Amino acid sequence: MPILNKDMSLCISLAARPSNIGTRFHNYLYDQLGLNFVYKAFAPADITMAVAGIRGLPIRGAAVSMPYKEQVIDLVDVMDPSAKAIDSVNTIVNNDGVLTAYNTDYIAIARLLKDHEVPTSHSVLLRGAGGMAKAVAAALRDAGFTDVTIVARNETTGRALAALYGFTWQDDVNESTADLIINVTPLGMAGADETAQSFDDSTIAAAKMVFDVVALPSETPLIAAARQAGKPVITGAEVIAIQAEEQFVLYTGVRPTPEQVREASVFSRRQA
Amino acid sequence: MPILNKDMSLCISLAARPSNIGTRFHNYLYDQLGLNFVYKAFAPADITMAVAGIRGLPIRGAAVSMPYKEQVIDLVDVMDPSAKAIDSVNTIVNNDGVLTAYNTDYIAIARLLKDHEVPTSHSVLLRGAGGMAKAVAAALRDAGFTDVTIVARNETTGRALAALYGFTWQDDVNESTADLIINVTPLGMAGADETAQSFDDSTIAAAKMVFDVVALPSETPLIAAARQAGKPVITGAEVIAIQAEEQFVLYTGVRPTPEQVREASVFSRRQA
Repeated sequence: MPILNKDMSLCISLAARPSNIGTRFHNYLYDQLGLNFVYKAFAPADITMAVAGIRGLPIRGAAVSMPYKEQVIDLVDVMDPSAKAIDSVNTIVNNDGVLTAYNTDYIAIARLLKDHEVPTSHSVLLRGAGGMAKAVAAALRDAGFTDVTIVARNETTGRALAALYGFTWQDDVNESTADLIINVTPLGMAGADETAQSFDDSTIAAAKMVFDVVALPSETPLIAAARQAGKPVITGAEVIAIQAEEQFVLYTGVRPTPEQVREASVFSRRQA
Repeated sequence: MPILNKDMSLCISLAARPSNIGTRFHNYLYDQLGLNFVYKAFAPADITMAVAGIRGLPIRGAAVSMPYKEQVIDLVDVMDPSAKAIDSVNTIVNNDGVLTAYNTDYIAIARLLKDHEVPTSHSVLLRGAGGMAKAVAAALRDAGFTDVTIVARNETTGRALAALYGFTWQDDVNESTADLIINVTPLGMAGADETAQSFDDSTIAAAKMVFDVVALPSETPLIAAARQAGKPVITGAEVIAIQAEEQFVLYTGVRPTPEQVREASVFSRRQA
């Protein structure tokens, strides 16, 4: 059991349905790196008062999840470009009373596109039109990708997302192909459409790279099929780990090693 | 190192200059009793926003120290009689968004007078006129003591305190004696007037019971002299332990055994 101390910095998460993953990830790294921090998940009773508490107590940083990602925009002082790009906040950092909002999902996706050296000349099929699809679309646009097609059954949201970043929209994959195919729907997600493969084998075969934002399981049907076909992949587990790492850096100013991030990710999913 | 979990209840303290004592006391007992709670001390940046945070996050309970004990009165929903009696709050409990304020110093003193079976017919010399002296005076009045003299150099505060509870005031002990003598000044306190004995030997000799609210050291010059003279004593360490125990019960609904409270008190002072 922890014996906490009075000088510890507190970081928190704000989510309607908190999980233990962030709590375990951050506390594991605080311990590994000998940082005087502690992390605790909250299901806020009132988001406005919760953010007041970040200022008042004070709390060093907060992860923001559904359904608060847009609601907190009016409650912070500064919108970092990562949050501004998609009008969505997943991280708040409190610097001496000034609350700055970030979106580390956007940061993670931008970093993955760069780290995996995906050419911006690649054509892209982006399946999905929710909040995370918006982060992916914005990161693609900001990285310089121009040939991007949003695939979404809902015409209103699909067209709106495409229009926002100057992309095109279509309602289904059908026979379409692209150099980079990205799934940002729940297809293949544990507990959702677990067995569904979000792009079919022929689309995979035509692709040069396959990206699935679904993180649980880390090996979705799409990722499994892509590996089978010998395609390089970017996984949702990478997105989750990098977005959490970037939050960690924003809160603490310390960058853990890739090995530490891997260990913390594994730990965070064990019994979590 | 702690691996906290998402379902843990958080209790906090709010003090301009936090110590580790409460943090260690409460976390020790959470651990001993297997309660899914964690305790963290804060030096608030803004007390109004900090209390908003208690509601918004939510936080289960908060210890309130200087200089916030009066300031929070307007920020809570319900004043328990213990806080109302002295217009001073040292504990806030959050029951589903309803904040109730208590004063467990008052509760502890009332309980000690009862546990030590001090007859209400005893004459009392109460030395001091600060916030804690007010708690002692209120507890005496509410227990039924009527022959109480407030001893305080400052005539304004001394007279005001005496008038509040229907007692008398005098500016110094001089040759006065009483059945119960109580020190509620910093006389004898470590780091303050450490070697000062707050009542002289003749006053101790004439007393039937000696009460020192000073808790550090646990054996003040007054308590040492009283023991030497064979007088029954009530110590500041008892006040601290009981007020903390009562906070613990208010937060958790669980009453630790006297032995557990003793162990937690000892632990809380070690390296604290």
